[in-house]
Amino acid sequence: MQKVFIISTGTELLLGTTLDSNSVYLARQLEDIGIKVVGKATVGDRRAQIEKAFHSGLESADIVISTGGLGPTFDDLTKTVACELMGCIPVLRPEEEKRLRDYFAQRKRPMPEINLKQAMFPPEAEVLPNPQGTAPGMYLRHNNKLLILLPGPPREMTKMYLEQVKPRLERDYAAELQKVICRTIKVLGPGESQVEEILASLMDNPRGCSMALLAKEGEIHIKITAEGVDEADRHKILDEMSQAIHAKLNKHIFGYDDDTLPQKIGKMLAASARKLAVAESCTAGMLGSMITEVAGSSEYFWGGVITYSNECKMKILGVRASTLEQYGAVSRQTAEEMARGTLQLSGADYALAITGIAGPGGGTAEKPVGLVYIALAYENGCSVKELKFIGSRETIRKLSAKSALDLLRRHLDQQGG
Amino acid sequence: MQKVFIISTGTELLLGTTLDSNSVYLARQLEDIGIKVVGKATVGDRRAQIEKAFHSGLESADIVISTGGLGPTFDDLTKTVACELMGCIPVLRPEEEKRLRDYFAQRKRPMPEINLKQAMFPPEAEVLPNPQGTAPGMYLRHNNKLLILLPGPPREMTKMYLEQVKPRLERDYAAELQKVICRTIKVLGPGESQVEEILASLMDNPRGCSMALLAKEGEIHIKITAEGVDEADRHKILDEMSQAIHAKLNKHIFGYDDDTLPQKIGKMLAASARKLAVAESCTAGMLGSMITEVAGSSEYFWGGVITYSNECKMKILGVRASTLEQYGAVSRQTAEEMARGTLQLSGADYALAITGIAGPGGGTAEKPVGLVYIALAYENGCSVKELKFIGSRETIRKLSAKSALDLLRRHLDQQGG
Repeated sequence: MQKVFIISTGTELLLGTTLDSNSVYLARQLEDIGIKVVGKATVGDRRAQIEKAFHSGLESADIVISTGGLGPTFDDLTKTVACELMGCIPVLRPEEEKRLRDYFAQRKRPMPEINLKQAMFPPEAEVLPNPQGTAPGMYLRHNNKLLILLPGPPREMTKMYLEQVKPRLERDYAAELQKVICRTIKVLGPGESQVEEILASLMDNPRGCSMALLAKEGEIHIKITAEGVDEADRHKILDEMSQAIHAKLNKHIFGYDDDTLPQKIGKMLAASARKLAVAESCTAGMLGSMITEVAGSSEYFWGGVITYSNECKMKILGVRASTLEQYGAVSRQTAEEMARGTLQLSGADYALAITGIAGPGGGTAEKPVGLVYIALAYENGCSVKELKFIGSRETIRKLSAKSALDLLRRHLDQQGG
Repeated sequence: MQKVFIISTGTELLLGTTLDSNSVYLARQLEDIGIKVVGKATVGDRRAQIEKAFHSGLESADIVISTGGLGPTFDDLTKTVACELMGCIPVLRPEEEKRLRDYFAQRKRPMPEINLKQAMFPPEAEVLPNPQGTAPGMYLRHNNKLLILLPGPPREMTKMYLEQVKPRLERDYAAELQKVICRTIKVLGPGESQVEEILASLMDNPRGCSMALLAKEGEIHIKITAEGVDEADRHKILDEMSQAIHAKLNKHIFGYDDDTLPQKIGKMLAASARKLAVAESCTAGMLGSMITEVAGSSEYFWGGVITYSNECKMKILGVRASTLEQYGAVSRQTAEEMARGTLQLSGADYALAITGIAGPGGGTAEKPVGLVYIALAYENGCSVKELKFIGSRETIRKLSAKSALDLLRRHLDQQGG
């Protein structure tokens, strides 16, 4: 089994403010393809420290992956130091220099000469393009060791790992890589311990199949990993387990692997050529922002209203003053009028509305912080749901937006749409 | 300034499921008392790995703190290995043995002899009692090095640090412990290497003041740390550096330390009793969601419109069909009409509008992905700004929303609040 050592560079990681999520992401990804993490190091921008880390990494593992330190600034030393230890010398690559100069030209900004560092690589290295930034990654096999350098910003790093690194690892280690296959089943609704109870009987896997639960912003991700004598066997094991889980959680399941709730809903709406509009009070745009994470969402998303003030609720959505007075802005009745008003205003097929108390202030005995109403209006009806969340302002807002999406998802599921 | 190296032991920390929060907690605590973290390592339960980690820790720092690996089982090697490297030999301590035997007696359970390991400490060591578990910690000063071993469970670790370790550190290093003070200056607008060039002359700090740059979602955070002979001196140094930086970046600076752009704008609007409304196309709610991260934002945030479709732009904001036809939805003219329409609709004092191409699709030669227009409308005017971002759909959206906030921030700054 291949061994990997992960190095995170960046002074900020040594301060008590930044959690190093990169190394955790990489560890999980590498596990998935059967590469074992034997150690991790976090270092600042000091040359001596970086050297030590790469030295002990190369000593104790076949593969060393580092994140960060690829920037143009003086304190970004990772590539320089790592190449030295591998016994390779970075030289300027014309095509990379051109790419850099174009990048700055596009932005109509002069390129600081110091950025040229980012265009230098050892001849032995494969350059990993970084469409999202100026710092390319590096994949360097030399003397039976593999050195992989990735940028620090998580979005750049994850994209580069998935598109550039993973395929190369599978290319270079196909033989050694102990094949395991995984599937993640994603659930929204029940809590982690609830899911654990529901699946208890499946936890003790009969054969070659393990299960792990991960709670993530209200979603529960069930990761099943199958080992087997061969490809077919592994798939058989995985499918059996998936079916068993599906039988127990069925309608709570919203997707698999990389599926997201917004994607899932997008597919359903697009497939049935329906349109969606929203009205948001406490989430103030979070729902619209989630829906439009999906490229091409304009096909089914009309838009909506951020009704943060009562005046806005009345003026744009026609919520009645009497309703607001009698029941309050955070009430079943207001949520329904918001949804119906949005449906009418937009002429969309579905309208989602959210009103709630995100806190930390503004709660009362009968309407505590975390009380949220979500409503779904459609041609011949409107369903309203009362929810009570516990957590920070941000948590309550996120869970409210996701629950609204899930309300629509379940409705569309029933419609078989 | 004292240097510390932090080691986290435990195989689970190498799996892609557990975030190592212990080391982050310790880093923050140690910073606060002026001890600098120079490196971190995470290791499993392998002797060789643990040895390497402690070896390079003792090599590169005056103080090594580790968490975990103090349990009774065979794979808990931390204490054994660490003591060896310090050149000290653990011996059985009767009082600790008694404590252990009592612990098990109380629970009416036989004590596995292997637990005796937890009663063995070098004569030079101070034992750190652990009221919450069976594994005591250790505080060992020897040969000008300090070794501190803490248990892995966060609850036990934090309690032991605060009650047992911190007081000892202050006792033993009172003299050396150089109190440092930090300040973070937050900038939006120029890029990281641009800021680096602007501040180049200040980078080589004249005296006791260091500077670190951190790029974070379009923001550049400049962290300055001052060491000095005494409190007054440190503040003097920090203030001088702040002023020097302010002189060079002035209007690009939006805040300090924990300030966020939404907070900053909130304060300014609340102070002048002004109201804000928004209209969002490509960001589709992200701007409203950012503004309302701030508790109490209803005081100054009216709400807004998510104009994801042209129909919505026309219907709610009165954007003219002719404008959309002639110039397109992503244009200076449309942005201005969106902002003016929102100002009129809401009766707010300021209206921000965003329209752009977030990608990945939808770009053309003259209107590429990343082209964004932001507009600010107010009683007697409207300013529109054209921006070009490069990056993922999410990046382009986030930077668009932040830039809109920053456009307002700069306007309010000019107005003097």
